[in-house]
Amino acid sequence: MPHRVRIVEVGPRDGLQNEAATVPTAAKIELIDRLSATGLETIEATSFVSPKWVPQLADAAEVYAGIHRRPGVRYPVLVPNLQGYERARAAGADEVAVFTAASEAFNRRNTNAGIDESLERFAPVLERAAADGVRVRGYVSTVLGCPYQGEVPLADVVRVARALHAMGCYEISLGDTIGVGTPGKARTMLLAVAADVPMPALAVHFHDTYGQALANVLACLEEGVAVVDAAVAGTGGCPYARGASGNLATEDLVYMLHGLGVETGVDLGMLADTGTWLSGILGRGSGSRVGRALASR
Amino acid sequence: MPHRVRIVEVGPRDGLQNEAATVPTAAKIELIDRLSATGLETIEATSFVSPKWVPQLADAAEVYAGIHRRPGVRYPVLVPNLQGYERARAAGADEVAVFTAASEAFNRRNTNAGIDESLERFAPVLERAAADGVRVRGYVSTVLGCPYQGEVPLADVVRVARALHAMGCYEISLGDTIGVGTPGKARTMLLAVAADVPMPALAVHFHDTYGQALANVLACLEEGVAVVDAAVAGTGGCPYARGASGNLATEDLVYMLHGLGVETGVDLGMLADTGTWLSGILGRGSGSRVGRALASR
Repeated sequence: MPHRVRIVEVGPRDGLQNEAATVPTAAKIELIDRLSATGLETIEATSFVSPKWVPQLADAAEVYAGIHRRPGVRYPVLVPNLQGYERARAAGADEVAVFTAASEAFNRRNTNAGIDESLERFAPVLERAAADGVRVRGYVSTVLGCPYQGEVPLADVVRVARALHAMGCYEISLGDTIGVGTPGKARTMLLAVAADVPMPALAVHFHDTYGQALANVLACLEEGVAVVDAAVAGTGGCPYARGASGNLATEDLVYMLHGLGVETGVDLGMLADTGTWLSGILGRGSGSRVGRALASR
Repeated sequence: MPHRVRIVEVGPRDGLQNEAATVPTAAKIELIDRLSATGLETIEATSFVSPKWVPQLADAAEVYAGIHRRPGVRYPVLVPNLQGYERARAAGADEVAVFTAASEAFNRRNTNAGIDESLERFAPVLERAAADGVRVRGYVSTVLGCPYQGEVPLADVVRVARALHAMGCYEISLGDTIGVGTPGKARTMLLAVAADVPMPALAVHFHDTYGQALANVLACLEEGVAVVDAAVAGTGGCPYARGASGNLATEDLVYMLHGLGVETGVDLGMLADTGTWLSGILGRGSGSRVGRALASR
């Protein structure tokens, strides 16, 4: 069990891109600023994927220009290719993330490209980023199952994670996009990847569709992972995945970690207040049980 | 990790006694009959606590008389004292459960008696039950925190669990009534009790107020516990505990256990259908993420 966990807050990106409600640009900026004040070290701010694909984040450049960047906090953004990278850089981003699925079927539906084609698109991004001194994170999705092909072979997860790491991604986030995984499978998957990519370069990313996210995190912490993705108020889901629900709620994760004696640097009360506020903007109940419990006090 | 877990379904009792909606007697009977068909081996059917305290279960005798008892399934009921035991027996119960808190403050508010006074009340119940060949389960509540006194010393949990076991309870269910526990604390608590009461005589019972229930179960399974309480659709809570929410949802537990390769004997699809049906009766969304995900397919 690590002594400290770095949380990568993905609410403003993975959360909001999958919410039905339209969130005004000013509210997105306020969300990121509020999250910055909680002690979170990494906040994925937005996505420079084409607005045709992700209309919810069409205001990426305005959002990025509007946030108050707090010293010591990193604000990566998602980019799909070199063009997106250039837009992100023009907006001021100094850390980016690229993404591909471990499932060929999912990648084709999600990005209109095969996995190898996606990896080829990232090569110039990684080259340019290295020249620019920009750090690149890599996401691997559907690591524990795919809505189209079902089972995803472990070897495919390992192959994609290894490729992204070899291309220069400093960290690989392993995502159970449709939330079907359970702790034993999560553990096995993590260990398989860790045989090829060093554990300090790995993060886990669970969705709570079947209520398993926190238990999966626990199993992975026991294997030594020390970076965990989560989204305030349990926002998000995946519009391409049938029945998918939100991300693991950051509040619930922080509550568990602090209870385990694991440091996060996050002020849970401020975080929960931010989640309650965001849920109001979204016009729905919070996806965080901690958020609901603290708000009902 | 055990190969098989016995689930004690507490929805008809711990769930319904804490729901705001009034559930008709016929629906309670249908609920228990539906649960019986899923493969669950133990279904806590109702409570013979005074209707003055638990009006939701005032129809305990009618419910018990109405259910179709399936061979191989046990239908224990909660009893507060010898009088309740006699009412339960008259209704046909052949297994009962008694309960006390590990927190003195909670026990006084909940039952108007100190812990030692509660234990004294159980002595004649245990004696009579032994003479009648009736099995008695013991519940210890507030094992990881109390809404009134805050911290509950581990020594108090151990003392109460040991006392109930010594009096003849065949199984002791350790309950985090207000759902504040996290996996490390749950593990430590379980191991402290297991030093005095054999692990096969222990069960765990978590509420999901802070979203920690399933992770807590995982930690306890890793220590060898093989009996877990849960309530279909995550029903219930605790009317005496501020901000308490429902029990761990049986559907989410079964999903995790099956994913871990742990047998339960339960048909998850039938269970989820029952939870969806019950949520309709209660007029609210299911507290089970698995239930919601399967229903949205």
